[in-house]
Amino acid sequence: MPATITIASGATWEEVAADRQRHRDISLASFKPSLLNLPASSIPADATAIPRSILTAQDVEITEKNVEDLVLMLASGRWSAKTVVQAFMRRAALAQQLTNCVTELLPEQALKRAAELDDHLAATRKPIGPLHGVPISVKEHIGMKGLDLNAGFVGWVGRVAEEDAHILQILWAAGAVFYVRTTQPQTLMHLETSNNLYGTTVNPYNTTLTAGGSSGGEGAIITLRGSILGIGGGSIRSPAANNGVFGFKPTALRLPVGGWSATMTGADHIVPTIGPLSTSLEGVLLFVRTILHARPWLKEPSLVPIPWKDEVQLGEEGKGIKLRIGVIWDDEVVRPHPPVVAALSQVVEKLRGSNEVEVMDWQCYKHDLAWDIIAKLYFCDGGAEEKAAIDASGEPLRPLSKWILEENPHVQEHTISTLWQAHRERDAYRASYAAVWNERGVDVILCPVGPGVAPKLDTSRYWGYTAQWNLLNYPAVVFPTGIKVGRDTPGVGTEDLDAHEYPADYKPMSSADAYNYGLWKEHGVKGYAGAPVSLQLVGRMYEDEKLLRALDILLDAAGLAKTC
Amino acid sequence: MPATITIASGATWEEVAADRQRHRDISLASFKPSLLNLPASSIPADATAIPRSILTAQDVEITEKNVEDLVLMLASGRWSAKTVVQAFMRRAALAQQLTNCVTELLPEQALKRAAELDDHLAATRKPIGPLHGVPISVKEHIGMKGLDLNAGFVGWVGRVAEEDAHILQILWAAGAVFYVRTTQPQTLMHLETSNNLYGTTVNPYNTTLTAGGSSGGEGAIITLRGSILGIGGGSIRSPAANNGVFGFKPTALRLPVGGWSATMTGADHIVPTIGPLSTSLEGVLLFVRTILHARPWLKEPSLVPIPWKDEVQLGEEGKGIKLRIGVIWDDEVVRPHPPVVAALSQVVEKLRGSNEVEVMDWQCYKHDLAWDIIAKLYFCDGGAEEKAAIDASGEPLRPLSKWILEENPHVQEHTISTLWQAHRERDAYRASYAAVWNERGVDVILCPVGPGVAPKLDTSRYWGYTAQWNLLNYPAVVFPTGIKVGRDTPGVGTEDLDAHEYPADYKPMSSADAYNYGLWKEHGVKGYAGAPVSLQLVGRMYEDEKLLRALDILLDAAGLAKTC
Repeated sequence: MPATITIASGATWEEVAADRQRHRDISLASFKPSLLNLPASSIPADATAIPRSILTAQDVEITEKNVEDLVLMLASGRWSAKTVVQAFMRRAALAQQLTNCVTELLPEQALKRAAELDDHLAATRKPIGPLHGVPISVKEHIGMKGLDLNAGFVGWVGRVAEEDAHILQILWAAGAVFYVRTTQPQTLMHLETSNNLYGTTVNPYNTTLTAGGSSGGEGAIITLRGSILGIGGGSIRSPAANNGVFGFKPTALRLPVGGWSATMTGADHIVPTIGPLSTSLEGVLLFVRTILHARPWLKEPSLVPIPWKDEVQLGEEGKGIKLRIGVIWDDEVVRPHPPVVAALSQVVEKLRGSNEVEVMDWQCYKHDLAWDIIAKLYFCDGGAEEKAAIDASGEPLRPLSKWILEENPHVQEHTISTLWQAHRERDAYRASYAAVWNERGVDVILCPVGPGVAPKLDTSRYWGYTAQWNLLNYPAVVFPTGIKVGRDTPGVGTEDLDAHEYPADYKPMSSADAYNYGLWKEHGVKGYAGAPVSLQLVGRMYEDEKLLRALDILLDAAGLAKTC
Repeated sequence: MPATITIASGATWEEVAADRQRHRDISLASFKPSLLNLPASSIPADATAIPRSILTAQDVEITEKNVEDLVLMLASGRWSAKTVVQAFMRRAALAQQLTNCVTELLPEQALKRAAELDDHLAATRKPIGPLHGVPISVKEHIGMKGLDLNAGFVGWVGRVAEEDAHILQILWAAGAVFYVRTTQPQTLMHLETSNNLYGTTVNPYNTTLTAGGSSGGEGAIITLRGSILGIGGGSIRSPAANNGVFGFKPTALRLPVGGWSATMTGADHIVPTIGPLSTSLEGVLLFVRTILHARPWLKEPSLVPIPWKDEVQLGEEGKGIKLRIGVIWDDEVVRPHPPVVAALSQVVEKLRGSNEVEVMDWQCYKHDLAWDIIAKLYFCDGGAEEKAAIDASGEPLRPLSKWILEENPHVQEHTISTLWQAHRERDAYRASYAAVWNERGVDVILCPVGPGVAPKLDTSRYWGYTAQWNLLNYPAVVFPTGIKVGRDTPGVGTEDLDAHEYPADYKPMSSADAYNYGLWKEHGVKGYAGAPVSLQLVGRMYEDEKLLRALDILLDAAGLAKTC
């Protein structure tokens, strides 16, 4: 393998990026026989049907299993780990051509690992662990021993992980096969995925839209079933929602984060999280259970030692055992686009007809204040580390880096005194929200994931619907409703959007709302055609198990699928 | 009641202090009939026998019960809450005369509360909760509605708590009676207890020594049984050890801290704790169980929702179920004074003779580095808030305030960048210590609580033996060994100290060790005569239940009492 070209070795940022892309293309090259040699211009806006039309029947069969079924095929030896991972590598390579979601395939190490697992099963007749042979895709910011760990900065190319990230070690011990790394945005602080190394990751359902971020590569590859279980970090919910897959952001300090790469390490004002994206709710559950079963807190002492709980208590104590769901229609800052309101209405209507759940409206408690508080805590050094990482190569700021770092009025260089003040505001807000929740006694909150479906590229500016729960450190899970924008396109939902259109005399509630309203007026149903509509379910801090159980109940009650 | 005299009302700091003392004395005045009118000069160095010689037989009987027995007498109605709290108020008033540990008695509210509880029991024949009628003493920095909340600063006198601290609300609901507030040091950052409002709290066993701190008032009042269960905060272990009582510092974020008063709120780099001091291990357990049973995390969202666990796993997995104890003889920075080494030897010898435990030496992992790291995180603003609070009144710095703020080379005003660096060092150290613990597989660590027994006033400069576990956020509990310094004094232990004397050619390991060595050479057995020798048991983060269970086993195995 040729040496990595880096800024330190005297290259320009463009040369470094070109080398990274070359490296990626070489890793994909051996999968050429099965790849359609598609020129970008011939890819239809909705690319989701393409892989199935190209792959062999067996590859399709394998890659269209969900995790819970795939593990059975692998553990029984009906499919070898090698056969399975080869199918996923072929489909991942296709996903890359369609959405630009891959930074490198790992055929050598994946095939070696698969052989090891196949040998183990042959010798012992037992799977090595609960994830025996399951291929898992990994966002590039999670360290893999011996591989580049650049955090999306051109200037950081050449940094190599000394060991696998903690979470990978656990998944490895459970039998996982790592075979592909996926894209991340510059700064990791976009709700989209674009950087100067690989360009922009687009949405498989409509390639004029973003795949979301910062785990957009995971979102896109999972939609296209180049993976059925992947590791993301940060929002997790934005890419899951934009791509219509399941995504779970756990309570911080439950799942390990040791060994990832980003700026601002040591900034624990808002603790970041890693979590799974999957084609199925069961995939999410298996991931989380497997990790907690390994007691990661013994190695990573910042974690809270709460084992996975199978039993959860639903309903307000003494008020029966129905799942109680509070519904946020809008956050009183930005009204979601009509498809989101329509999908939420349809789901809530079904829930109201169910005997298993109780539904009530949830009036937001100062969500505008929440954004002020968290935005002040995101870049406590005034963005100095971000800027240094960017300036290290001379690469330009991507539009959304510019937006979050330079056009965000909340960015300030804190002193210790202003930092403590910001902590106090955060803690007071959390206590107030807890008091509100105590009073209302719901189990979970059902709400939008963002102010619309997958946005047009470089327009994802409003973070409120996800950042709100980051500030509160509430776990949140995203699920697809099965509804897609554009009634007239075959195969999409039938909800009548018109009933949820903005009123003719709509007056925006805020400047962010005016921007969002303008996007809808500009692009409308045609502009967002094909985009899946997803929703978010939110639980109280550390009630991750209850949240996932609640989603299971909700999906049943609303007649929605647990897979996609 | 006359208005509080404050700096804001134009008074000098001396006038404010005099008014606070007047307020305290008025609160004690109604207990005069039972008080010995002792001039300070006539108090023997060991004051512990005095209360028993003055109080009525019934008062002695009541105040010499431990919590676990007192609750039975109260719940059965054999003693009324009123009778009980009156006895404790009389003994608390004595404790104040002997050690200067009280900031105010609360006879009015205590008697009102007791009457309410007595009425409840008469009407329902049931105790109101698990602490029905139990008098609990409260360190002054914990907010009580309508009472002064000055955090030990003259300039803060006049700040009044708007509501009871969260922990008091829970204890109240469980049936507690609050009747006395106890002293705190200026800045709360001394291992002693002295401020310019009330002067210095001294040790009941030897009034030339400190009661420790920052909860020295609690330590002293509990030793004298002016209380049998109190709430401290901060070290907790220093005052418990110096006074020979039980004291438990829980893992941070398990017990509520909402509503206490101190500088540097919002500084969550090292999270402070509140915990119990008691005359019995059962008192500690009842306190912790009662609070966790109330699910405090629902109201205070920074807390971790781990309920009290009755079942704990002892011994390294797969290696049997014996309690495994690692022993730290010294931390390789400061060698403890001979009485501590002697007591530790005696206890370890007994443990080695027990079938219930396994004992092994624990080699310290860079405890000197630990102090560097934590000391850098204690005053991240360079001490600015402390200094502002002191300067607000013009009060002088107490000697140990000067020591920790001005003579401590680790105090620095951080930038965000140096703060993050300090966080990274903290987290790396925690991870390294966890790795060491994983490898060695003990359940708990047995170690000194400090570099000696209760120090001479204003000499408590070495924090390593307790701060170590604060940095790691490990829970720790202190227990008396029954040994007291000075073989020739009646009633003290029989251990031969000579065998543990410093070698004639002793070379100090560090400047802190030289200072500590000098203290012993200067004061020796005579200087510390009567001081109890206590030890510390330390558990892993969040293993609070296991730690307390381990102490129970250890005390049995070593033939030590569970009460004092």
